Amino acid sequence: MTLQVDLNCDMGESFGAYEIGADDAVFPFITSANIACGFHGGDPTVMRRTIASAVKHGVAVGAHPGLPDLIGFGRRNMDVSPDDAYDMVVYQVGALLGVARAAGVPVQHVKAHGALYNMAAVKRELATAIARAVRDVDRELVLFGLPGSFLISEGEAAGLTTACEAFADRNYMSDGTLVSRKRPDAHVHDANEAVSRAIRMVREGKVRSVDGVDVALRADTICLHGDGAHAVEFARHLRAAFKSDGIHVRAMGRGVSS
Amino acid sequence: MTLQVDLNCDMGESFGAYEIGADDAVFPFITSANIACGFHGGDPTVMRRTIASAVKHGVAVGAHPGLPDLIGFGRRNMDVSPDDAYDMVVYQVGALLGVARAAGVPVQHVKAHGALYNMAAVKRELATAIARAVRDVDRELVLFGLPGSFLISEGEAAGLTTACEAFADRNYMSDGTLVSRKRPDAHVHDANEAVSRAIRMVREGKVRSVDGVDVALRADTICLHGDGAHAVEFARHLRAAFKSDGIHVRAMGRGVSS
Amino acid sequence: MTLQVDLNCDMGESFGAYEIGADDAVFPFITSANIACGFHGGDPTVMRRTIASAVKHGVAVGAHPGLPDLIGFGRRNMDVSPDDAYDMVVYQVGALLGVARAAGVPVQHVKAHGALYNMAAVKRELATAIARAVRDVDRELVLFGLPGSFLISEGEAAGLTTACEAFADRNYMSDGTLVSRKRPDAHVHDANEAVSRAIRMVREGKVRSVDGVDVALRADTICLHGDGAHAVEFARHLRAAFKSDGIHVRAMGRGVSS
Amino acid sequence: MTLQVDLNCDMGESFGAYEIGADDAVFPFITSANIACGFHGGDPTVMRRTIASAVKHGVAVGAHPGLPDLIGFGRRNMDVSPDDAYDMVVYQVGALLGVARAAGVPVQHVKAHGALYNMAAVKRELATAIARAVRDVDRELVLFGLPGSFLISEGEAAGLTTACEAFADRNYMSDGTLVSRKRPDAHVHDANEAVSRAIRMVREGKVRSVDGVDVALRADTICLHGDGAHAVEFARHLRAAFKSDGIHVRAMGRGVSS
Repeated sequence: MTLQVDLNCDMGESFGAYEIGADDAVFPFITSANIACGFHGGDPTVMRRTIASAVKHGVAVGAHPGLPDLIGFGRRNMDVSPDDAYDMVVYQVGALLGVARAAGVPVQHVKAHGALYNMAAVKRELATAIARAVRDVDRELVLFGLPGSFLISEGEAAGLTTACEAFADRNYMSDGTLVSRKRPDAHVHDANEAVSRAIRMVREGKVRSVDGVDVALRADTICLHGDGAHAVEFARHLRAAFKSDGIHVRAMGRGVSS
Repeated sequence: MTLQVDLNCDMGESFGAYEIGADDAVFPFITSANIACGFHGGDPTVMRRTIASAVKHGVAVGAHPGLPDLIGFGRRNMDVSPDDAYDMVVYQVGALLGVARAAGVPVQHVKAHGALYNMAAVKRELATAIARAVRDVDRELVLFGLPGSFLISEGEAAGLTTACEAFADRNYMSDGTLVSRKRPDAHVHDANEAVSRAIRMVREGKVRSVDGVDVALRADTICLHGDGAHAVEFARHLRAAFKSDGIHVRAMGRGVSS
Repeated sequence: MTLQVDLNCDMGESFGAYEIGADDAVFPFITSANIACGFHGGDPTVMRRTIASAVKHGVAVGAHPGLPDLIGFGRRNMDVSPDDAYDMVVYQVGALLGVARAAGVPVQHVKAHGALYNMAAVKRELATAIARAVRDVDRELVLFGLPGSFLISEGEAAGLTTACEAFADRNYMSDGTLVSRKRPDAHVHDANEAVSRAIRMVREGKVRSVDGVDVALRADTICLHGDGAHAVEFARHLRAAFKSDGIHVRAMGRGVSS
Repeated sequence: MTLQVDLNCDMGESFGAYEIGADDAVFPFITSANIACGFHGGDPTVMRRTIASAVKHGVAVGAHPGLPDLIGFGRRNMDVSPDDAYDMVVYQVGALLGVARAAGVPVQHVKAHGALYNMAAVKRELATAIARAVRDVDRELVLFGLPGSFLISEGEAAGLTTACEAFADRNYMSDGTLVSRKRPDAHVHDANEAVSRAIRMVREGKVRSVDGVDVALRADTICLHGDGAHAVEFARHLRAAFKSDGIHVRAMGRGVSS
């Protein structure tokens, strides 16, 4: 049996004259790009260029819809209703589909951004709304979410293919949730340890929690960070480790990925 | 031979708590709705509701992309490049396609809004960019434009079906362009005269200019206004006159229209 | 001793081509105008015009800063930090001060809008941030808030003059807070009853709660609504009732108010 | 007689999570900071931080109002009316005044940004509107503009102190206007030559045009660029050259500048 995993990264979050992220440097190492759709970041021109880069690197394209909070980069919780969430996801996924169609590229997946992703993980009605929005636009789209979160369960209830997302450089609680960023032990700082954890997630479907317990964790796709001083270095390291460990890195579904 | 014409109106330009236009009152009289896509007006929720109303009234749905100028309602010329125009049209048409797909409704046409429409009428590169954007998203979409404008010629050059738009209540110059809104004689104020002119446009393909010359004018679709005190009254009047004159009122192409 | 009270209303919430509220009809009945500052509603032109109307009607001018959520009209809670709140209030109050200075008009007060007002009522750190923002821009500004809320206590701690705001048409809990809008008994629908309650608030400093208990309530200013079918009628009614009851209606502090 | 000149730079143009410009590196070399006010760039938090940096470096603070075009960074001409321009300048200058008051810092000047600056240079009505907006908010503010432009003449007509701005690294036409950025010879690429030109502008009030003619040029303030690979290096170079040439570098008016 061949083990495989997808590597995804948030891309195309620049806006107008503002550049953010190291997209060009990260593209060679990933297989799925979550492309911002203009609400928390990204703009129509950036979307077109990011899709062109994805095609060039054989990376599958996904929509990365966020809250309408450009100044907060979509990271601040907002009290949006399920209807609001449905509408904003339909709109943003549609916009990305339009840009992708103009480029002749299929869209593989949808990953909600930031606060929208985190709120939907724990609020069932938001997750239901997002899952239905994705299904109503295109039922072939793969929905990304935290394993055990409502995005996964509601995505499956809506008949979507789902992809469980794991974080190599984040610590986990014993219930499978991420350690809050407010805690000092939120991150795994040692790159070698993060790589080892990622390999174990894929190979064994487990991760060791901060309390020393092994937690079951389905890892269909691993999230890389597109900025930070060591982002590219870590991506290269992880990719090499997967290769030497015989883990095949490839996109989830439709798309141009190798 | 049966004479026919489409009646279109700008719809769905409300935004959040802000309501504008008399959409509900106008829907019964039109056959094509130009639905704002969030840049100059409209928002994801308004788009969903407007498409639902269009379906209810058997009205064909179109995208109405505008400049990114909400505060100016897309009416102020902006020095956007052809690439900017291409990208903003792809994005907005894609967003509307997404909302329409979620509602299970085909999209019939694209009509640029306000300053984008007016600038593209006279700037070939903008018209080319808009026509290509529409074609690249979906080559079955019908592109609306002023007869004789670059939107029509570039739309045809791009292989699109085009629809020439006439205005029953606007005066024309002898070269077929509209009398500037800055002139006192920009509008035809008498409703009966406006109706007679509309019928002649459809029946004879002609309109009398402000200088008393008959101007050839292809009128595939006639634009109604969605606000103003007499908008609904005029729409009812015009629709009745077409009926008694044996002119069939129907949408251009794909869609749910009668 | 002469009893007096201020009547305030949210004004100037139109935006670009979008008109909202019945400002012109309400101005004759109020003494303090809370003028939107461009984040949840309002724009620079609307602000100028609203201040001009306030001057014409002898109404005192205040800033009405809101969350940066135009599409949600500032009514959705957002997880803004105290620093965010401080900065957005300083900016918006400054902008209104600029428009008022250009018109030669003093600014009397600040009333936070919608979700910002409601969140700050119960989150001390937000209230502290808002109070300091107001004080740091101009310590003569009067800060509006719900009686018993953190906006009042933190406003006083910051050395500001505060004004307790009461709602004639809202029901109260026995702890002095407003009945949630989610409950069916949130509003007092009978205009005569609402007027009687307003008079008692001013005269006795009390209101009867939904549980039949008399609650102490300092009512320095009463909030009128600027929209809704009966807004103007109620304003006229209330103003007349105050007059016949010998209650003087006047603004809080600086300004042009009668 | 002591020769003196001001060195200004556009600062505080970051927005939310988006950082732009090398503000920290440039601050030590300038005497006046043009601080973005939230329309083309900047946000309330960035404004507060930029003013704090200016204070730390003894740099005078100015408002840098722009067009409401964040996605275009205020660089695209828009067909704004003089009233629009008046209102947007009053608002933005007011907002900056608010942030500066909260920090206890005086505001020295106003420099319009990008397309607003360029349009107002050649459109008298826009320049009049901007000058009156500045005067109406605070008649002590110094208005920056190109020498010979309407911003200078209308600023003086409005009773404002004006500052003529020169560009060390731009070429000039024989009529004193800048060579268009569309021409290959728009810029002076050699740093030594740019420094020599700057010194001559201050010392002799002249610059050699692209056609080899000496053009009279009042240079009260010289504009540095805040980004680009060589911005800081050039700033250091220019500052050193002024020092060795006995030209005193200092701010125009009010402020904390040395």
